[in-house]
Amino acid sequence: MQFRMAVEYDGAGFAGWQIQPVERTVQGEIEAALARLLGHDTRAIAAGRTDAGVHARGQVVCFHTDRLLSPDVVRRALNALLDKDLAIRGVDVVADDFDPRRSARRRSYEYRIWNELVRSPFATRHAWHIARPLDVEAMRRAAAHLVGEQDFSSFRAAGCDAHHPVRRVFDSDWTRDEQGLLAYRVTATAFLRHMVRNIVGTLVEVGHAKRAADSVPALLAARDRGLAGATAPPHGLCLTAVEY
Amino acid sequence: MQFRMAVEYDGAGFAGWQIQPVERTVQGEIEAALARLLGHDTRAIAAGRTDAGVHARGQVVCFHTDRLLSPDVVRRALNALLDKDLAIRGVDVVADDFDPRRSARRRSYEYRIWNELVRSPFATRHAWHIARPLDVEAMRRAAAHLVGEQDFSSFRAAGCDAHHPVRRVFDSDWTRDEQGLLAYRVTATAFLRHMVRNIVGTLVEVGHAKRAADSVPALLAARDRGLAGATAPPHGLCLTAVEY
Repeated sequence: MQFRMAVEYDGAGFAGWQIQPVERTVQGEIEAALARLLGHDTRAIAAGRTDAGVHARGQVVCFHTDRLLSPDVVRRALNALLDKDLAIRGVDVVADDFDPRRSARRRSYEYRIWNELVRSPFATRHAWHIARPLDVEAMRRAAAHLVGEQDFSSFRAAGCDAHHPVRRVFDSDWTRDEQGLLAYRVTATAFLRHMVRNIVGTLVEVGHAKRAADSVPALLAARDRGLAGATAPPHGLCLTAVEY
Repeated sequence: MQFRMAVEYDGAGFAGWQIQPVERTVQGEIEAALARLLGHDTRAIAAGRTDAGVHARGQVVCFHTDRLLSPDVVRRALNALLDKDLAIRGVDVVADDFDPRRSARRRSYEYRIWNELVRSPFATRHAWHIARPLDVEAMRRAAAHLVGEQDFSSFRAAGCDAHHPVRRVFDSDWTRDEQGLLAYRVTATAFLRHMVRNIVGTLVEVGHAKRAADSVPALLAARDRGLAGATAPPHGLCLTAVEY
């Protein structure tokens, strides 16, 4: 049978999702805990392979086993085995042919920015600290240009293994919460490598009036990564939801 | 001249406010940074001497110096010298006889509880994780009984050096935010040692129906620490504001 798990982690202590020989990774920790619980090795497959330092509140992870266990037992046992920066929020059983990557219809990410003169010991653990004021209205106008089915080659990192660069973006907008944290929320069918961080780096340049909000359509049309902004740092990014 | 600073810190890395010979403390870090900036030793005095593990978003700290420095220079230089879990949010100049402890009229604390079956890698860094459901309405009724000028001996820790146990509580209530975090917010003239954590431990027992919401007046009247609940852990507590 195949189990599906809702997984949450603080990315600060991980060299990303994907298992590596030496460094601590989310996949490595989960597979080690599963081996202890099940008594056999099994592969853990994630909906999104987050990079080093990137957080997740809504990651989805699947694994196969012949052991007859209830979802509740799996959840409790894994949470007891895993460190506190990684939590299994829920477990259910899915069909054997369910694929957490290919079956996903929409993924949502959030990128946080602490846009105050002075850093905050709380906010800046999970947000990019930018001291210089940002023009959020200009960033919202620029973000709106990203909605729709478009070629995102200009925001695609080198080494991206996707078959094609076209993605459908459903939502793309900035908000400011009551503590002053800026959040960019974006939902799409799927994302190219570093796509959200490259978008955020570009929209921050809009917020600093280094490029115009309405320059985004031409940037998309150029299909040239060299024309977009720098890649925003990973610790502001969080995978918030995957929908099936 | 005397400087006053608005200070924020993540308490996880500190053995509390008060300077100690070996352990890392907030006062120790600030006095070391001040000595480097000013070229002479000076004492840093806080509005509230927070315990080990307790956080602050609105701590107030004062120091004296004969050096002629602008508040902006003090802020920037200290933030450059201090580690990232401690930040100077603002600096101004106050009268030489201003006393950050004695001049304070109201102090506010917040205590956070993550009341979900499964821990959250984000929430539980700064919140007490209680898996069993809490009856928040009962806790709100119990909290309301604490408002007013009353003798808080039942919530006073051993070793408290306050002259008398009477305090005026202005606000005392629970809220639940959109992420599901419970927060107890309390404002008073001043607090006795461990008073907020002892109140929270008692109100959690109300939330678990171990004591009645309306038992609080009798508990206050008894003036007996042995009758109140256990002390809540420090990492859920934050000093949020000091008013003058």
